[in-house]
Amino acid sequence: MNSAIGVDIGGTKLLAVRLEDGNLADEFKTSKPDDGAVMIEGIVAAFNKLAQGHEIAAIGVGVAGLVDFETGTFAWGPHVDGVNIRVRDELSTELGLPVAVDNDANTTAFAEYRLGAGQGSEAMVMLTLGTGIGGAMVFGGSLYRGRGFAGEFGHARFARGEHVCDCGQRGCWETEAAGPALERLARQLISDDPRGSLATVVDDVAPSGPAISAAASAGDPQAIALISQVGRNFGQGLASVISIFDPDRVVIGGGLGSIGEILLDPIRASANEARYAAEHKELPDIVGAQLGEQAGAVGAALLALEETQ
Amino acid sequence: MNSAIGVDIGGTKLLAVRLEDGNLADEFKTSKPDDGAVMIEGIVAAFNKLAQGHEIAAIGVGVAGLVDFETGTFAWGPHVDGVNIRVRDELSTELGLPVAVDNDANTTAFAEYRLGAGQGSEAMVMLTLGTGIGGAMVFGGSLYRGRGFAGEFGHARFARGEHVCDCGQRGCWETEAAGPALERLARQLISDDPRGSLATVVDDVAPSGPAISAAASAGDPQAIALISQVGRNFGQGLASVISIFDPDRVVIGGGLGSIGEILLDPIRASANEARYAAEHKELPDIVGAQLGEQAGAVGAALLALEETQ
Repeated sequence: MNSAIGVDIGGTKLLAVRLEDGNLADEFKTSKPDDGAVMIEGIVAAFNKLAQGHEIAAIGVGVAGLVDFETGTFAWGPHVDGVNIRVRDELSTELGLPVAVDNDANTTAFAEYRLGAGQGSEAMVMLTLGTGIGGAMVFGGSLYRGRGFAGEFGHARFARGEHVCDCGQRGCWETEAAGPALERLARQLISDDPRGSLATVVDDVAPSGPAISAAASAGDPQAIALISQVGRNFGQGLASVISIFDPDRVVIGGGLGSIGEILLDPIRASANEARYAAEHKELPDIVGAQLGEQAGAVGAALLALEETQ
Repeated sequence: MNSAIGVDIGGTKLLAVRLEDGNLADEFKTSKPDDGAVMIEGIVAAFNKLAQGHEIAAIGVGVAGLVDFETGTFAWGPHVDGVNIRVRDELSTELGLPVAVDNDANTTAFAEYRLGAGQGSEAMVMLTLGTGIGGAMVFGGSLYRGRGFAGEFGHARFARGEHVCDCGQRGCWETEAAGPALERLARQLISDDPRGSLATVVDDVAPSGPAISAAASAGDPQAIALISQVGRNFGQGLASVISIFDPDRVVIGGGLGSIGEILLDPIRASANEARYAAEHKELPDIVGAQLGEQAGAVGAALLALEETQ
């Protein structure tokens, strides 16, 4: 018996899965909790929904934010009020099961490593592009966590842009190469070219990232050009990540990352052009994530089975 | 019996040591070899010098450049002519001993981890400031190498400066925060203030990094200000390294790094100011290297004992 529940708490939703022998057996989605008490209640409710009638070995939780894996404590995150919530202790008291709690970028990367685009990699860096740029590393089969908070790639100051990041600094990678940069470029384009193809397709002076991605996927040339620009900006920073890690695999995920080759091709071209000593070493494989939005919850369940048994 | 020879081939010198039970028993220094054949001859000559009358278990070599640790091949480096030199194979044929070959930043970091400033660290990043910025990582007691070429921190494009790097790109960290940046700032200062204290102390319109460091160590306020400026530039990039790795220890070495608190204090202040989520996690320990110029050779010997026995 090898059944576990995984829960992923992101910026907008709580997504839970039941995993049976590595396969997704069931899932449940609800809105994300607003504070710490609601977070614990929400996880317990999702657990009860999915666990009924099944023998569950462990539960794993991935949360966006700073998580201390050793103690299972959610230290702080941008989407949930409250700090230093002892998620592992509260859940193990409540449910009487082994609990693992980690950052959701870590649980997502672990799922991709075990079941998706990272399989077989020895030195994998996963980067998720959405509202920001998150990331995680799996080296020799294990998540690298530093003191617990590693992988905050979005705030590495690779960019030379002028845009102030939400964190207060200038030059953060995510200010140039994630969803808000795409939306900013689109607003500018539509303002400059109000009768252009993108303006016509999206019918909005300030389209959302998903709307721009949808227009690009449907073939709109202006939307494709914008995605390509963000991809090139991303590739500039990725060149630095490659200089530092020399990974064998880079897995690109997240909402914006899921668009595929329209984004991945310019990322590869730009990273290849900008990286150091390109004539002496190969560009690593740069591939899209495979597991979709369930990855964070699936990885939390896998991690719970692995780390608590 | 636990005796090994370590050889470090850097930008200007070949330095070899004999290690007995973890202690430096003897050393030998000569000029660095210019090409691959001379490199092998030079290592063998240094070995013969130090090994005579001793039973040697293994030999380790650290070389500046891209080294494939798995095959013991020196792929390419800025200071030695020739590519893809099979150092391990040639030395083991010549000497009949187990051989380990690695990048010199790796061997230096390994020595600091085992015997110096990195002792007890779980997630250590070492950065060497000299002509450029090199680096290496020791995670859970083992060197992290990626595909073999990890740790090229100097070419991570953290800086937003205008200076073109030797590698052809703009914005490389080392263009703003290593020896040449210090020398550039000093030339500018002396040109602007030809009767200032630094001009008087160094008596040179274009002083070298070591001359500026010596002036700072002797208390010259202008030299101290320049070192401090380079330290702050370095700290800006270090903030990104901290966001990515969340290390528990950062060890600063190299020629410029060895100046101590005059450099380390502004590095700490600037990294602390620029890093992400500073209110939620502690600044890692940022400390100077302890083992001096022998570290690379000592680490090569330690690695040879560890990896080949």
